[in-house]
Amino acid sequence: RPSSRLAQMKHQAHQSPSSSWASLQADVEAHLKHAMPMKEPLVVFEPMHHLSFAAPATAVPALCVAACELVGGQRHRAMPAASALLLMLAASYTHEHLPLTDRPKPKPRPEPMIRHVYGPNIELLTGDGIVPLAFELLARSDDPARDDSDRVLRVIIEIARAVGSVGLVEGQYRKITTGGSGSDGGEVCHVESIRRVAEKIGGEMHACGGACGAILGGGSEDEIERLRKYGFYVGIIQGLLLQRGEIEKEEEEKLIMEEVEKVRDLALMELEAFEVQSMGQGPQSKRLHIGLALEGSQSCNYG
Amino acid sequence: RPSSRLAQMKHQAHQSPSSSWASLQADVEAHLKHAMPMKEPLVVFEPMHHLSFAAPATAVPALCVAACELVGGQRHRAMPAASALLLMLAASYTHEHLPLTDRPKPKPRPEPMIRHVYGPNIELLTGDGIVPLAFELLARSDDPARDDSDRVLRVIIEIARAVGSVGLVEGQYRKITTGGSGSDGGEVCHVESIRRVAEKIGGEMHACGGACGAILGGGSEDEIERLRKYGFYVGIIQGLLLQRGEIEKEEEEKLIMEEVEKVRDLALMELEAFEVQSMGQGPQSKRLHIGLALEGSQSCNYG
Repeated sequence: RPSSRLAQMKHQAHQSPSSSWASLQADVEAHLKHAMPMKEPLVVFEPMHHLSFAAPATAVPALCVAACELVGGQRHRAMPAASALLLMLAASYTHEHLPLTDRPKPKPRPEPMIRHVYGPNIELLTGDGIVPLAFELLARSDDPARDDSDRVLRVIIEIARAVGSVGLVEGQYRKITTGGSGSDGGEVCHVESIRRVAEKIGGEMHACGGACGAILGGGSEDEIERLRKYGFYVGIIQGLLLQRGEIEKEEEEKLIMEEVEKVRDLALMELEAFEVQSMGQGPQSKRLHIGLALEGSQSCNYG
Repeated sequence: RPSSRLAQMKHQAHQSPSSSWASLQADVEAHLKHAMPMKEPLVVFEPMHHLSFAAPATAVPALCVAACELVGGQRHRAMPAASALLLMLAASYTHEHLPLTDRPKPKPRPEPMIRHVYGPNIELLTGDGIVPLAFELLARSDDPARDDSDRVLRVIIEIARAVGSVGLVEGQYRKITTGGSGSDGGEVCHVESIRRVAEKIGGEMHACGGACGAILGGGSEDEIERLRKYGFYVGIIQGLLLQRGEIEKEEEEKLIMEEVEKVRDLALMELEAFEVQSMGQGPQSKRLHIGLALEGSQSCNYG
């Protein structure tokens, strides 16, 4: 029964990721490895391969595939977009950890440090090579037999905006120009600034994953917007939990966790429309996938 | 008469750029300024604007527009692709001059040094923001009324490949991994390595400009391939002339200049097919534009 599935998902949202969510991620990675063969010149492709899979996993690619399936699309239709999203996040992660001359040396932290396998020059170029590859994969995914080039172009615009100067890049600007999440004024203000970074860095990429999956799966405009919002909330939760580690005051941590609960409710609300639609339509395996995004968002450590 | 035009172009190829070539470049810049309005957050868009136009001009955007017109297309069809190419080269230029911790300090040179208006962090992010914007402009250029989304997707693939790990980025890897053009073994080998960098850095971007213009102008496959080759040769000439400044031995410089002459003949040969086609078709203003690329290639100082 769908309602018991939903209850199960709500419960799971507080647990570690399930194998079915991890298997979506593994499918995307397998697709990408196939689409990005190791070839000459190795000096170029070896670092590209390595750095594409070195970044911490996020729920974004799996969310894209799950959204496609939820609206009735076939999984393989979403694979190029899911792979492109994975590549974009990997490129961004690589550039975010470049040792630039005006960046402070990383502080020692409990978690393991970034291990730089290549020099900064190569890492910079590799990020620069990964991004066009992602757009190439998207543009190639057009299937003339299906006449879906409009959907593909729409997804290219969605992803370009999400990773660009009004999305991921803007979030990183904010991080730099406000000196990270720790240099603002009062407490409320601080929590708000954490929320804003969470929206830009986590929210918009997950929103993009949900929307692109729904577009490629042939979803209605209403379904596309619901899955965009659902992704947005899931991404904010991820962004908030990530930044929690940097908070020192107990009061603030409490405010952040209240925010997480509020946003989680909003995310679940977007799923309700699908719940009603699918009542009595047989096994709800698709519903399960989407619900798991909430759970995936808890254990991912991208940032 | 076309033949006298051609003679004129051959002559002009050794001069400074004409006003008609410069006016194509100005048109592309005006289109781009309109497509990239200055908006909030200014902390993001101000550096994007500045750095997009701060890189030295190349013949690539104008070549794209000229190729479109040569095959009978309207100028405005090529503007988004020409703008995207300009943005890609600007992003690449910005990243190539980032002060990374493993890069040697720039040697003092006769030409003016790069003036860094922003910190490395901002310059890195700005490059990262410019590239998706370029793809967004391309994807948005689809005109449903014309049903040309297949051409637009093809151009996205062309540009992604030219700027990515099998094009511009590979050329930069080569520069880094061979330690620039000055560290190879024997002389012939050195000239050959200069030629290879010229192919990757100049050749493939100009080839892409020619091909994309011809695709968007509705050219035949034969026309697309001729303008691709023409662009390739023009770009190699540019790359060779750029690197000439770094050569110390007179003998080597002679070899390079011989190579330039050889490649120039090949470039002009690709134009001959258009010459025959257009005999007696009235004013040859389009022909003039394309021929000027040879001339533009002499005075640009990208690199």
